[in-house]
Amino acid sequence: MALEVFHKDETLQMRRKLIGQSCRLFFSRDPVKIVRARGQYLYDENGMQYLDCISNVQHVGHCHPSLTQDAAAQMDLLNSNTRFLHDNIVLYADRLAATLPKKLCVFYFVNSGSEANDLALRLARQYTRHQDVIVLDHAYHGHLTSLIDISPYKFRKLEGQKEWVHVAPLPDTYHGIYREDHPDPGQAYADTVKSLIDEAHKKGRKISSFFAESLPSVGGQIIFPTGYCKRIAEYVREAGGVYVADEIQTGFGRVGSHFWAFQLQGEDFCPDIVTMGKPIGNGHPIACVATTEEIAAAFTASGVEYFNTFGGNPVSCAIGLAVLDVIEKEDLRGNAVRVGGHLKQLLLQLQTKHPLIGDVRGVGLFIGMELVKDRASRKPATEEAAHLVRRLKEERIVMSTDGPWDSVIKFKPPMCFSIEDAERVCTCIDQILRDVGDFISSVEHKRRFLTQTVAVCQSYNGGEWESRLKHTMKQKQKTLTLYLQSQLGVSMVHLRDRWR
Amino acid sequence: MALEVFHKDETLQMRRKLIGQSCRLFFSRDPVKIVRARGQYLYDENGMQYLDCISNVQHVGHCHPSLTQDAAAQMDLLNSNTRFLHDNIVLYADRLAATLPKKLCVFYFVNSGSEANDLALRLARQYTRHQDVIVLDHAYHGHLTSLIDISPYKFRKLEGQKEWVHVAPLPDTYHGIYREDHPDPGQAYADTVKSLIDEAHKKGRKISSFFAESLPSVGGQIIFPTGYCKRIAEYVREAGGVYVADEIQTGFGRVGSHFWAFQLQGEDFCPDIVTMGKPIGNGHPIACVATTEEIAAAFTASGVEYFNTFGGNPVSCAIGLAVLDVIEKEDLRGNAVRVGGHLKQLLLQLQTKHPLIGDVRGVGLFIGMELVKDRASRKPATEEAAHLVRRLKEERIVMSTDGPWDSVIKFKPPMCFSIEDAERVCTCIDQILRDVGDFISSVEHKRRFLTQTVAVCQSYNGGEWESRLKHTMKQKQKTLTLYLQSQLGVSMVHLRDRWR
Repeated sequence: MALEVFHKDETLQMRRKLIGQSCRLFFSRDPVKIVRARGQYLYDENGMQYLDCISNVQHVGHCHPSLTQDAAAQMDLLNSNTRFLHDNIVLYADRLAATLPKKLCVFYFVNSGSEANDLALRLARQYTRHQDVIVLDHAYHGHLTSLIDISPYKFRKLEGQKEWVHVAPLPDTYHGIYREDHPDPGQAYADTVKSLIDEAHKKGRKISSFFAESLPSVGGQIIFPTGYCKRIAEYVREAGGVYVADEIQTGFGRVGSHFWAFQLQGEDFCPDIVTMGKPIGNGHPIACVATTEEIAAAFTASGVEYFNTFGGNPVSCAIGLAVLDVIEKEDLRGNAVRVGGHLKQLLLQLQTKHPLIGDVRGVGLFIGMELVKDRASRKPATEEAAHLVRRLKEERIVMSTDGPWDSVIKFKPPMCFSIEDAERVCTCIDQILRDVGDFISSVEHKRRFLTQTVAVCQSYNGGEWESRLKHTMKQKQKTLTLYLQSQLGVSMVHLRDRWR
Repeated sequence: MALEVFHKDETLQMRRKLIGQSCRLFFSRDPVKIVRARGQYLYDENGMQYLDCISNVQHVGHCHPSLTQDAAAQMDLLNSNTRFLHDNIVLYADRLAATLPKKLCVFYFVNSGSEANDLALRLARQYTRHQDVIVLDHAYHGHLTSLIDISPYKFRKLEGQKEWVHVAPLPDTYHGIYREDHPDPGQAYADTVKSLIDEAHKKGRKISSFFAESLPSVGGQIIFPTGYCKRIAEYVREAGGVYVADEIQTGFGRVGSHFWAFQLQGEDFCPDIVTMGKPIGNGHPIACVATTEEIAAAFTASGVEYFNTFGGNPVSCAIGLAVLDVIEKEDLRGNAVRVGGHLKQLLLQLQTKHPLIGDVRGVGLFIGMELVKDRASRKPATEEAAHLVRRLKEERIVMSTDGPWDSVIKFKPPMCFSIEDAERVCTCIDQILRDVGDFISSVEHKRRFLTQTVAVCQSYNGGEWESRLKHTMKQKQKTLTLYLQSQLGVSMVHLRDRWR
């Protein structure tokens, strides 16, 4: 297998032509071409090594040899479908069952987290005979039609909110309506869900489910306050609904202390449905839904077959089993506790030096560092976060941002991330943040943004451009707009007059 | 990798406990445990060989060594996601583009046919800004919420028809409203779609798309009449909609003469969107949507990213490339023409001997043989078809049925199916059909069905049973109900009185 067939420029040119442009590249102005990887390290076409801080999918490390071996062995023996009996699927379901509370004992295998969440929605609706869904603000649950409907992060930019969707405030104790100084934020945020249920009932609507990531990722690496999930589960069940824990980003030991992030909420909380994805196959397309006997029975009682062509095939299950083996054998949960703990400590130390770091939060190898303009207002430092990510790339560290304002630096590295990796990243962040003041105030910086704005505006010809520009600014250049408006006092009207 | 971990009974017991019962097994009363496979042959836990006539997913043959080799090589090098530049995705898109009309030149990679059809729906709606969809009766387009809505085969058993879905008659010239004696069934059936569009417009509704498999499979291995697609494409485009060709079952050379089944409709017909799945990765979870620059541009213009975690990863694309290589190197399209042609001839010969065979239709290795009670009425011989499938299993041939009445024996074998395999199957069918008369009239047969009915009824206790029985009969025991009603004159009221 050749490392590279085309020169990077040619790859980029073919990609722009052949692949839908909605599929975006990291570092779109100067994307990275990665040709091989091992563990937590990526290598570009020139053999340059990058430290990978974000590939949570490659959970046990890129290209783990025991996974390749088990996958190839099973590919050589048999790949079929679930209409034939096979041991792998039952072995694998049995292993997953051992990680979960007893009541979550029935499994459905699918090909992606999106397929898992869609099936969870079908299960919840079939079981409860209700339609409506409560979700958290800024949530993202997948790319399918049904999931965009329950993802405020997406539907706000597209068709808008459906009448059967109810959006609860994100229980973010740093930015939200109840903060770290509230005596019981778990209860307070749970009450917002209770109010939503009551309002829905007044309109004659019926709740099928509460859907939430056990640690909201796109929302900004949020850690739920104590007691939050348990109380919501009570409210939702009283309303005849079920609790769906989306563990697609957070499962398989990422939090270290527990196998599933929902377990951080205590042993007296158990969801009714759990969805799994991303790390489950270390990059191989597999995903899963776990649920109770009662919910599965209601789905069966519809009398309609559920057949997923590739879901649960012997190769996918062999890979799933191999991932579980590596997590255990290499004590990756222990590593997440040790390295994640150390990384968080280092970031907290940096926070004492750099006023830009407003908050450091997280658990295991799921950590967020939020940048703010100033600590009093907690105004998100979006542009500074983007600058930090760009600068880290120059230092050969791959990092990205998340959160409603893209102001949260998110750490979700392969679980073999080491103490040395953590120290290297923090040393780089320290250096970059030392110079960030200069960056922010530099004339050069303002000039560059103005030039980019000119380019954006000029690329739109004629009538539609105002809406297009607004749209672009909203979506692609949010950072730019924010910066221009706040720092330079340039309004959109001003821009329109200038470039028309 | 062990061939077997548990004894078959234990596997079955674990499966019933751990895997949702909506996931059904072939031959549910005595399922087959397959532990290895090669080419067109499956092997059970006792080493017994089965000839596989239905695994269209394992397109180039089970466990093709060159696929395993390429997959393992890429797994060892890199598996990442489409946010990094990589050659495999552009190489693969380029190769797929070469099989398609020039206008279908933009690609999106996903993990399953269902994900592909869901994305096609999103693309169509975003481009046309219309919502409504026209589908064919009995169609199945996938297991996702959005696709059950456009699959009469499923929604008739579940929530029913949405107001934005319009169902056109299946252009089945054997059973449908226009038959083989019609002077121009293509035009006549296309006109039914035109009428649907006109009706929808009268209600103020707007058509986003016409969705159809290029050869309806669940509908009963249907071959579209000449001119059908081209005229529908004209009508749908006049209405501001697009034509979506679902090639998930039919693509990649299955029809032999062409790479895509829609190409059977002539060079002057080109869909606006093509969805691919099942055979694309020989069992590896990969799927694809191809569309035009205009539709892709409209999707991009929404400003919203489309990110599919596993879709288009370097391993999936390496496997996709390897499948294309094998199709070419082993001339599998040529094989489909030769073997499929021979198989169809043999079945047509059997038709001259067995009045039960009402119709033989198909192209390449996509063939349907429809059984009927008698040729004049064309009444489907559902139970006889089930009997034939059961008997073929005893002869170690895996076959299944399709069509609205499960009366169509469907051939969709791996593309390496040989002349000898075709002859073996036809010899077996000939022998089984010779004895089928005895089977049908036997008292033993009637007794067995009555016993089964008793068991079904007794398994339901108390109040709900009538609706449950109706439901079960409709879904799981359609065959039984039909047989009891037609052959024994046993009505449901009769049964209720007897077993209450």
